Amino acid sequence: MRLSQAFLPVLKESPADAQIVSHKLMLRAGLVRQTAAGIYAWLPLGLRVLNKIEQIVREEQDRAGAIELLMPTLQSADLWRQSGRYDAYGPEMLRIRDRHDREILYGPTNEEMITSLFAADTSSYRQLPRTLYHIQWKFRDEVRPRFGVMRGREFLMKDAYSFDLDEAGARLSYYKQMLAYLRTFQRMGIQAVPMRAANGPIGGDLSHEFIVLAPTGESEVFYDAAYDQFDWSQADLNYADEAGLKGLFERVNTTYAATDETHDEAKWAELPEATRRTGRGIEVGHIFYFGTKYSESMGLKVSGPDGNPVIPHMGSYGVGVSRLVGAIIEASHDDNGIVWPDAVAPWAVGLVTMRGDDAVSQAAASDLYDKLTAAGVETLYDDRDERGGAKLAGMDLMGLPRQVIMGPRGLAAGTVELKDRRTGEKEEISIESALARLTA
Amino acid sequence: MRLSQAFLPVLKESPADAQIVSHKLMLRAGLVRQTAAGIYAWLPLGLRVLNKIEQIVREEQDRAGAIELLMPTLQSADLWRQSGRYDAYGPEMLRIRDRHDREILYGPTNEEMITSLFAADTSSYRQLPRTLYHIQWKFRDEVRPRFGVMRGREFLMKDAYSFDLDEAGARLSYYKQMLAYLRTFQRMGIQAVPMRAANGPIGGDLSHEFIVLAPTGESEVFYDAAYDQFDWSQADLNYADEAGLKGLFERVNTTYAATDETHDEAKWAELPEATRRTGRGIEVGHIFYFGTKYSESMGLKVSGPDGNPVIPHMGSYGVGVSRLVGAIIEASHDDNGIVWPDAVAPWAVGLVTMRGDDAVSQAAASDLYDKLTAAGVETLYDDRDERGGAKLAGMDLMGLPRQVIMGPRGLAAGTVELKDRRTGEKEEISIESALARLTA
Repeated sequence: MRLSQAFLPVLKESPADAQIVSHKLMLRAGLVRQTAAGIYAWLPLGLRVLNKIEQIVREEQDRAGAIELLMPTLQSADLWRQSGRYDAYGPEMLRIRDRHDREILYGPTNEEMITSLFAADTSSYRQLPRTLYHIQWKFRDEVRPRFGVMRGREFLMKDAYSFDLDEAGARLSYYKQMLAYLRTFQRMGIQAVPMRAANGPIGGDLSHEFIVLAPTGESEVFYDAAYDQFDWSQADLNYADEAGLKGLFERVNTTYAATDETHDEAKWAELPEATRRTGRGIEVGHIFYFGTKYSESMGLKVSGPDGNPVIPHMGSYGVGVSRLVGAIIEASHDDNGIVWPDAVAPWAVGLVTMRGDDAVSQAAASDLYDKLTAAGVETLYDDRDERGGAKLAGMDLMGLPRQVIMGPRGLAAGTVELKDRRTGEKEEISIESALARLTA
Repeated sequence: MRLSQAFLPVLKESPADAQIVSHKLMLRAGLVRQTAAGIYAWLPLGLRVLNKIEQIVREEQDRAGAIELLMPTLQSADLWRQSGRYDAYGPEMLRIRDRHDREILYGPTNEEMITSLFAADTSSYRQLPRTLYHIQWKFRDEVRPRFGVMRGREFLMKDAYSFDLDEAGARLSYYKQMLAYLRTFQRMGIQAVPMRAANGPIGGDLSHEFIVLAPTGESEVFYDAAYDQFDWSQADLNYADEAGLKGLFERVNTTYAATDETHDEAKWAELPEATRRTGRGIEVGHIFYFGTKYSESMGLKVSGPDGNPVIPHMGSYGVGVSRLVGAIIEASHDDNGIVWPDAVAPWAVGLVTMRGDDAVSQAAASDLYDKLTAAGVETLYDDRDERGGAKLAGMDLMGLPRQVIMGPRGLAAGTVELKDRRTGEKEEISIESALARLTA
């Protein structure tokens, strides 16, 4: 993308109304704009990141055998009356009356709808197990929306729902999603620790939150240093390996991790001091096993292997896709702006000419831009006739992982600067070497 | 995808409540399920088609230089008060009050919001021209939703908005979108004819509808046979070629096409009888040039080249993405089910074993499935132990363009049947030839 043709507005001043660093940076770097309280438009830069995060979530769901579909944003109130949650849900549910005065609502989650859909087209145990998911906008009418997309009202969520014949099957589906979550966050370049959590109003007795470690996080966390070493992508953990999945769950269950809400000082004291880690964190995912609560209320029943009816056991599994954009920034930024992990960067490379009015620089930059683009390297080329310093500051603010900086003096000697956003290290190398490194 | 692991429910009976063929087929083949009046969930099969259509729309918008962003589904009523449309819009607008009794609405379109967003970050003529678009769910509270996704209430739309310094620039942006639309529909394998239309409540005096020809279409259409010959992908029409774009517009303007609403019997009579075509059609896109109506009311102003303020000229451009799924089925089906054009087919190949209980068939099919998948050919393999006839009927109903049919007798001779869904033609060829043909 050539910046002169783009819509990538950056703000010079730090917005006064933003309280946390990710919100400030998302406004300054032009990822989002608020259009109503807790409701945001995603500008091109923010949408690129959102799409990358969404795609990683999708690929890891698919890899775990979950099947994608797409439920609508609006739901009928009757569906929620059937489970008893319509009255129970409280003022966070956005309740709507349509032109015929029918009661509808903007879905905050989809247990009722997916169970009803699955029930309508499922009659036999042979159609189980299944895990279905969708990635769709949800709405929760927060009493005091704040922190930008971290606690917005309209937000993008991946929610998956598993259907199994019995509890043992449902627990296996739960373990699969647990592994998928750990891999999802690891791929995004952030560390997320699973922590035992309360099921709350969704029901059931088995639940984990996934907390991204970030110095500016909302809650205090306590965890075993072993989590710093785990590699969830390891080849010996696959979704067909039941023993491996159970082992994963046991390992998570026996390796200490807790938020301030669930922290157990006695257990904590048992850990060797050298392995105790404390920090702050942000919730980015939550998984639940809740048995037959929704299959019973929504009328999901299949004929079992012996012909007798069976009520399937269910779980649900959420990832805050739009929230992750903020959480990743909280976990990865510095004084100059965002520092995107490679996997979610809006562009892999930022290309800057220090003198936009210099024809030699323009020609060299344009040539490198074409070559990088042809090689499939996503590149943002700031081709505007602006001050070099302002362009560099923009690239740092937007957080592009690698930057190529071209100036008349270097080009006269055939060299460019290659900069690493995270370390700030710069190297003076030939254009050919830069191209080779960036396309490697 | 192996059908035994999928969620692809088909209905044996034609649903009684569906009035038009696309609605019937979308229910029977398991593309959608209605979850409330005019609101649909997209099951895996439907979502795959919806995603393909969306991606073609996106690629052609990007090619035309439009920039993607994403606006939220809910909007503040104040935004619409500023343009005067809040009171004017009528009962099709879904009006909502949140927990603080603030008036919001589910966006039926986005002229107000995009103009307000663009104005906040644009100050100079150097930031023009720009065309911005998003693909997002919209809501129109139809008094009588019907015909499935063809006239649903919650629907997916691509809407683009152009901003130019003056009318001449805005007309050029309009021509670019016109070309992008013609290419978009051509790529989907359907014929869409542009027809001069009334601007209506959106304002302005230049507008075209794009009507897909389908025997079961909602309106009668009259058009010049020349439209059957136009190839919008031709190399001499590019977005940088102003004269070519103007020529395109002239050609469309001087080649007769009208719906029954705009039909002009006198002009029609001037056409040679051999070139008169009549038929039925379905509106799938609508483009508008409306000047400064929204830039004025929403306060969009830039400093011009001479330093004086300029009010940009705008246009807006809509494609009914979810509606297209229905429209394509109306245009392409037969008595056995859907006949997907290749570009939007949920899977390119359907693979069927006539005897699911035959180990030789299973092994051969599984091997071919792996090879096709490895070669990047999207394949649905019906690996269930069901009657061969029912499996074949399912593939036809779901409309997969090419089908490989494996039976014990053929396999004993080393052959399979390769079937073309559109023509129904079958060939008996070797497995190797089938693989070569399908991966060519």
